[in-house]
Amino acid sequence: MAKEFVKDITSMDEDFAQWYTDVVTKADLVDYSSVRGSMIIRPYGYALWENIKGALDRRIKETGHENVYMPLFIPESLLEKEKDHIEGFAPEVAWVTHGGSEELTERLCVRPTSEVLFCEHYKNIIHSFRDLPKLYNQWSNVVRWEKTTRPFLRTLEFLWQEGHTCHATDEEALEETEKMLDVYAEIAEKYLAIPVIKGQKTDKEKFAGAKLTYTIESLMHDGKALQTATSHHFGDGFAKAFGIQYTDKDGKLQYVHQTSWGFTTRVIGAMIMVHGDDRGLIIPPKVAPTELMILPIAQHKEGVLDHAYELKEKLSAKFRTGIDASDKKPGWKFNEYEMKGVPLRLEVGPKDIEKGQAVLVRRDTGEKEFVPQDQLETRISDLLEEIQQNLFNKAKEKQLEKTYTATNYEEFKQTFDQKSGFVKAMWCGETACEEKIKEETGVTSRCIPNEGEKISVECVCCGKEAEKMVYWAKAY
Amino acid sequence: MAKEFVKDITSMDEDFAQWYTDVVTKADLVDYSSVRGSMIIRPYGYALWENIKGALDRRIKETGHENVYMPLFIPESLLEKEKDHIEGFAPEVAWVTHGGSEELTERLCVRPTSEVLFCEHYKNIIHSFRDLPKLYNQWSNVVRWEKTTRPFLRTLEFLWQEGHTCHATDEEALEETEKMLDVYAEIAEKYLAIPVIKGQKTDKEKFAGAKLTYTIESLMHDGKALQTATSHHFGDGFAKAFGIQYTDKDGKLQYVHQTSWGFTTRVIGAMIMVHGDDRGLIIPPKVAPTELMILPIAQHKEGVLDHAYELKEKLSAKFRTGIDASDKKPGWKFNEYEMKGVPLRLEVGPKDIEKGQAVLVRRDTGEKEFVPQDQLETRISDLLEEIQQNLFNKAKEKQLEKTYTATNYEEFKQTFDQKSGFVKAMWCGETACEEKIKEETGVTSRCIPNEGEKISVECVCCGKEAEKMVYWAKAY
Repeated sequence: MAKEFVKDITSMDEDFAQWYTDVVTKADLVDYSSVRGSMIIRPYGYALWENIKGALDRRIKETGHENVYMPLFIPESLLEKEKDHIEGFAPEVAWVTHGGSEELTERLCVRPTSEVLFCEHYKNIIHSFRDLPKLYNQWSNVVRWEKTTRPFLRTLEFLWQEGHTCHATDEEALEETEKMLDVYAEIAEKYLAIPVIKGQKTDKEKFAGAKLTYTIESLMHDGKALQTATSHHFGDGFAKAFGIQYTDKDGKLQYVHQTSWGFTTRVIGAMIMVHGDDRGLIIPPKVAPTELMILPIAQHKEGVLDHAYELKEKLSAKFRTGIDASDKKPGWKFNEYEMKGVPLRLEVGPKDIEKGQAVLVRRDTGEKEFVPQDQLETRISDLLEEIQQNLFNKAKEKQLEKTYTATNYEEFKQTFDQKSGFVKAMWCGETACEEKIKEETGVTSRCIPNEGEKISVECVCCGKEAEKMVYWAKAY
Repeated sequence: MAKEFVKDITSMDEDFAQWYTDVVTKADLVDYSSVRGSMIIRPYGYALWENIKGALDRRIKETGHENVYMPLFIPESLLEKEKDHIEGFAPEVAWVTHGGSEELTERLCVRPTSEVLFCEHYKNIIHSFRDLPKLYNQWSNVVRWEKTTRPFLRTLEFLWQEGHTCHATDEEALEETEKMLDVYAEIAEKYLAIPVIKGQKTDKEKFAGAKLTYTIESLMHDGKALQTATSHHFGDGFAKAFGIQYTDKDGKLQYVHQTSWGFTTRVIGAMIMVHGDDRGLIIPPKVAPTELMILPIAQHKEGVLDHAYELKEKLSAKFRTGIDASDKKPGWKFNEYEMKGVPLRLEVGPKDIEKGQAVLVRRDTGEKEFVPQDQLETRISDLLEEIQQNLFNKAKEKQLEKTYTATNYEEFKQTFDQKSGFVKAMWCGETACEEKIKEETGVTSRCIPNEGEKISVECVCCGKEAEKMVYWAKAY
């Protein structure tokens, strides 16, 4: 019976891509518009983003950063100042050529990222060691001219934060890069319940203009990896290109050392693909727009609605609480809020009122329990914590199950032929091996984990001596 | 002595425009970049915007609205769907013509406002009377290709919120338009301490595509008016152009009735020009990034810094509290935080510690008082409220002082020749009179106030019968 209500969602195992599209649109997260590759983030999706943003913004401020806002447009000549950077981004920027009815003398690029704007500003405001560090962050929209797009995962325009910092020394910049990677990992694991692998990108995969890129990588339900957030160490490359110098304590001119780090709406895609099931979304309580949905049962009976609204009023003080007192059938409502991934459902009808209780149903396990009125708040609080923890544990378990090792190329290829997930394998450090692997298997290096684990001594591709262990995967 | 420190700020009465530029840059609100007409909003300016945004966002949500996010780009054909709208905006939009290295088949406009995107979406999601009202809001950046720009007041790109709502009836839409104007007036008066005149725009001054535009108008220190925020009633004009229809309770197809309303970073410009003085900014406590700045006196003496930091820790729980323990001279610090408009300064030195007191100095009046340690919190709380109220009262008084009346054209012209401010005068309702007045005096109609006050029976320009009383002014 209940099954019928979700017939509109394709089964995950049948067609994961279609399941994803069904879920993001039918759970009212996004809608399409006539703007190619762009999405409309609907109230339910945006409330989710606001919760994630709120948690991350708090951590960004607690770690000493200040928010600023830079212009949307970048003059072409400014974008060209750092060679690797422009090479990396030129193929994917949108160009403004006309303002009103006039043609511009210089094209303006719609920011794909804002390194060059921050650099130009830093050159203006940094003069002495007293001005350092500068720890800035910006929340904004950016545009990348992607050919193939999917809501949240890859869109022409997306929302993000980009941190940009300047430091007196290379060590301090490196420390900052690692600190912000840790903040990202914390938000992913503690708030979104997404387990991550922290590590470095290879040279081939690093950010255009960076000396070093750190990443957090996550495994989706289908065994493909998703780069969830990145943190870059620039050294003094941009500083030299832009002339950002300070006078040190000894009166000598020095270049600053920089970082940048970004976290985007893409993480919503990760959350969906890590926790969702055939009934729809499952949203971790800490970021859920609605933690608890109250559904009055037999609401036409005297006293039920009054009681339900009283509960709503009381519980709203502690939890993000919704109520659906519409005239739709209970079965429709159960399925609707399951599809929307609301962590807890509270049912209350005439019998429950008589017995002084309510019914709580968990979205993650489907478990149902009867809870006395006077214990409701405590029990809801405990259950939300349990759900949060359970979602992380389940995802972590699945990630470990889907993490394999390979010590030679045959084994490597075979594993990816038969299974999907992470493969841990040694790598000699040569881009040629990465390219060969990508061409022959579609697999990319995801990261070199910080722990420095080793599983053999030879490169899984060429067999030469290898020091670095890499997480490999097919990726979004 | 103190005077010397602020010699870099031009006197307001000498050159108000230069005073404004000095204040916004020297108080670290903004910086310029190589992007023409755009500004960098620096940490101090952005923290101010975050406080304003936070207060307004709360009220927008309390009044039942939901936040969403629409695309940055609008295809040219979509923008053209409502005739008056495109006519009004075409001259001031930026056009994207290339993505990566390819020329686009259709130009994309960078949103100057998002009516058409909301309309396209509403057509998709509204079907029945049960879907109404739809009360959406978005926080975003928009671009208008302005020729002459000034930080906050008129920039190529600015930040704002834009509300867009759909209703079953014209009356409901009108009610919404008025409700949101009231919310704007509340934020302006209660948070920014800016007194406003609420009223309607004339047809000539209304929004492109609107049936009716409401506005809140404020008077700046130099007697020029500033349109501080607007709220538009669209009737069913956009609904007809986009085919947004719903089935009513009787099964009949009806067009929806719409509104839109916007509040921008421009309000920061208003706040500066209403409250500022020759020493710099004065920021109302409710939106001040720092409400209270602690300055340790003779900080090299034992115990002073420890004591100051303890105070900071304690007061931070209740107030946005800063401390400047740098080795700069007290005189420099006094002037720096006066320039930045911090509402209260707390000084504490060895003698104060001995006497168990601290010194509080108000930014608005310069008044200084000694307050016993155990009464500090209460006194700070009271003073911040007093400052907030005093700023509003002073601004209101100034506005009333600078509001004149005129019953004939000679009197009208003479008043604007000799004085600056609002002139209340009757108007026949003809655009010709508005145009004549603008051409001959540079004065524009600001609004027809909601109260319907009358001061004579003849149009101040043509002498014909007149029903409407208009606030006239030179404006930003």
